[in-house]
Amino acid sequence: MHKSRLCGFIIDCQTEDLGAAAAFWAEALGMPAQALPGAEGEKYVRLDDPLARLHVEVQKVEHPSRVHLDIESDDVEAEVRRLEALGARRVRQVGTWWVLEAPTGQRFCVVRAQSAGFDREARAWP
Amino acid sequence: MHKSRLCGFIIDCQTEDLGAAAAFWAEALGMPAQALPGAEGEKYVRLDDPLARLHVEVQKVEHPSRVHLDIESDDVEAEVRRLEALGARRVRQVGTWWVLEAPTGQRFCVVRAQSAGFDREARAWP
Repeated sequence: MHKSRLCGFIIDCQTEDLGAAAAFWAEALGMPAQALPGAEGEKYVRLDDPLARLHVEVQKVEHPSRVHLDIESDDVEAEVRRLEALGARRVRQVGTWWVLEAPTGQRFCVVRAQSAGFDREARAWP
Repeated sequence: MHKSRLCGFIIDCQTEDLGAAAAFWAEALGMPAQALPGAEGEKYVRLDDPLARLHVEVQKVEHPSRVHLDIESDDVEAEVRRLEALGARRVRQVGTWWVLEAPTGQRFCVVRAQSAGFDREARAWP
């Protein structure tokens, strides 16, 4: 048995100026931007949801801009297999996470569980 | 003075089979699908977040599939003007809401305030 849940979304921006992209989205959504340390900070800026509802980041990408969802799981491989059985397909593995494509065409990611409330709140799958 | 906040996201699916699209996303995200009455139900299916974090719907669309964010406001026109000042541009008005395009390229919507906690939780803009 493993668990998963929607943990948030990433605002993928095809831009050379991650700072400007994050500044727009931080102001637009009313979520303060928080720089991340090291190499992660060159690609991602975290946006702090004052209501602590979801994990939100702005990401600098090469592909066209979009928004993608992240599902977190305590067993990434089991969760990817569950989603494949529903009709999703694997696109590629990046570090510890998988990029999948839904049967409806959107790309999304399965990442390792990272939220404080995960154990209590995530859905268990048989 | 008006208020706004991120209220949720819409999973836009370029499909003839809204039911199958909603069934995939409901299972993938662990959020039960809830049919909507009347004409709205021909285009939208609501997904109930058991954690009541965000408003999520699957929408049947003609354009390529994507995910888009919704910002809710008690004054849609004032919120659109605030976002224009940040660099967004108006794409078109649909009923009571506006479709905007971010300077980073993503389309998103400004809709009328609809969440139970809006008055208490939304951010006020001068």
